Amino acid sequence: MPSTSSPPDPIPTGEAITAAFAGRRVAVLGGLGFIGSAAVLRLIELGAQVTVVDGLLEGFGGDRHNLPETLPDGEIHIVDVREDGLEEILAGAEVVINTVGQVSHQRSITDPIGDLEANCRAQIHILEACRRISPPVVVYAGTRQIYGRAPELPITEAVPAAPVDINGVNKYTGEEYHRIYHEVHGLPTVRLRLTNTYGPRQSLEVGSSQGVVPTFIRRALHGEPLRVYGHGRQRRDITHVDDVIGAILAVASTSETNGHVYNLGSDRPISVGVLAEAIAAETGVQMEYIAYPDELKSIEIGDSWSSYDRLQLATGWRPRVGFASGIAATIEFYRRHPEYWRGG
Amino acid sequence: MPSTSSPPDPIPTGEAITAAFAGRRVAVLGGLGFIGSAAVLRLIELGAQVTVVDGLLEGFGGDRHNLPETLPDGEIHIVDVREDGLEEILAGAEVVINTVGQVSHQRSITDPIGDLEANCRAQIHILEACRRISPPVVVYAGTRQIYGRAPELPITEAVPAAPVDINGVNKYTGEEYHRIYHEVHGLPTVRLRLTNTYGPRQSLEVGSSQGVVPTFIRRALHGEPLRVYGHGRQRRDITHVDDVIGAILAVASTSETNGHVYNLGSDRPISVGVLAEAIAAETGVQMEYIAYPDELKSIEIGDSWSSYDRLQLATGWRPRVGFASGIAATIEFYRRHPEYWRGG
Repeated sequence: MPSTSSPPDPIPTGEAITAAFAGRRVAVLGGLGFIGSAAVLRLIELGAQVTVVDGLLEGFGGDRHNLPETLPDGEIHIVDVREDGLEEILAGAEVVINTVGQVSHQRSITDPIGDLEANCRAQIHILEACRRISPPVVVYAGTRQIYGRAPELPITEAVPAAPVDINGVNKYTGEEYHRIYHEVHGLPTVRLRLTNTYGPRQSLEVGSSQGVVPTFIRRALHGEPLRVYGHGRQRRDITHVDDVIGAILAVASTSETNGHVYNLGSDRPISVGVLAEAIAAETGVQMEYIAYPDELKSIEIGDSWSSYDRLQLATGWRPRVGFASGIAATIEFYRRHPEYWRGG
Repeated sequence: MPSTSSPPDPIPTGEAITAAFAGRRVAVLGGLGFIGSAAVLRLIELGAQVTVVDGLLEGFGGDRHNLPETLPDGEIHIVDVREDGLEEILAGAEVVINTVGQVSHQRSITDPIGDLEANCRAQIHILEACRRISPPVVVYAGTRQIYGRAPELPITEAVPAAPVDINGVNKYTGEEYHRIYHEVHGLPTVRLRLTNTYGPRQSLEVGSSQGVVPTFIRRALHGEPLRVYGHGRQRRDITHVDDVIGAILAVASTSETNGHVYNLGSDRPISVGVLAEAIAAETGVQMEYIAYPDELKSIEIGDSWSSYDRLQLATGWRPRVGFASGIAATIEFYRRHPEYWRGG
């Protein structure tokens, strides 16, 4: 008989995931950042004991207000992972979730050394600490941006990396370190390649991120017209952060994914123009199409979307949050929390 | 009519190369190292004005004795490229030859941060300095080790990088920076992928290099048996440093190679066993076959040889130094110069 079914859970829950994390000691590196804090909040719901590490480095997206003052069953360490002492903080962790890094393409052009520090050196410090404490799993939140201009669509994990800027090179290097530590040292790392993650608690500050979704949302909240570069038909996989956390928890709850790399992806790539239209419709701002700025031309990648078949096969993961509802809920979050953009 | 022709020049000389470098200002980074000093000595012969930069970092293969006290028409700067001032030293250079880096696989395992410093951070400092002074060409001496275990033989430049250790990852990152600075900033970089370079002035110190040729030569000179790991049938391209310098000068003397990447290679890959036999025959030491050490198993890559078709097509380069004569001459060099190995 027909029933009014509730929408699917935005992330895998159910007994399996709850059992996998209830009472478990989980360390989240970059845990005051956008993706890291979402992971922490979800893990608390699941009953995990969470240790948060975040250096709160200027412009990296970490924000002390992303988490409550104290965690119910955990602790927050404001520590740069490059400093001594990380090993002691991580000791006993059963899962390490690594969201450390900086994601600004443009900043990597003006400050390539800073990008190297965040995306390469920090990763070695993390992996060296993990190697000594030997946790059962380390999940690395990487990016599909390492593919650069897609030679074929959808992009599978077999496509060679061909990043178009220093940030992409360094992000790939950090991901590769995770592969090498698995192959050489037996550290059980899993690598995820995220794609255009958006949602609550993402820094909207100018310069923190060049992500198209937060850039549009920031402008829309300020009542500024949304600027679409070029024809706006470049399509992307847009992923709600809840789905990203779902993927992280999914690979962290099985050992079968250890040593492997997985794309995230969507069922419907969205063009930049359609994305702008949706945000403009939700907020009432105007849109304008302008020529691609010269300084960004060399790093424009055209269409880019990924197959998530491998991840689905391994864990059952698929994206659950619809584009329209995800965007609407995200804008609603920022309206309730003007502190995320009023200063920016 | 038949004639007794002399053997071909070990590196491209002739009027074209002499004209390309006579009176030209060439900077050699890592110029007190093995490959760097060979480049400097050759450039002096060709009448270039050479600026040498070398940090003489412990264990990186740089040696003040690799060059004379003063250069006839140049200068030597003992400077770490990561320090300020590189731009001023390089100002006016018409060619920059970049041989900076550290090549020890094993050290990258025990000191991954040190490896990152040498192979990634140093490269960004070099490229940033080059970007500001805008030389007509920057040649980067990279390595075929980035390919890791060859998925097909011979390896062409189209084979994706798949390094097997941190050193390989970082070396690839440094190479990728050179590509990105070309694509994003228009800096005319050329990337070469060297393979098992050997010859005079290579450091034979334990720990400076894990290269199979210098390791065998060091043991042979000390009268120790040559240890071949495993069956010894793994084949490699062995390149004499004179041929490497030939390749560097060849790509530096045309703008057509700018922005591209080129393998070096040989006409006859040599097995590790045959290499050991040749060195043993030349020196009278014994050989022994031993099991592959556990700590090296994860970074053993099996057969690996490369196609140099692309480089030959672009510049006419091909290796000139024969294996047997190259090995004999190299051993002869070290016999005449015991200071290269008596301390080690």
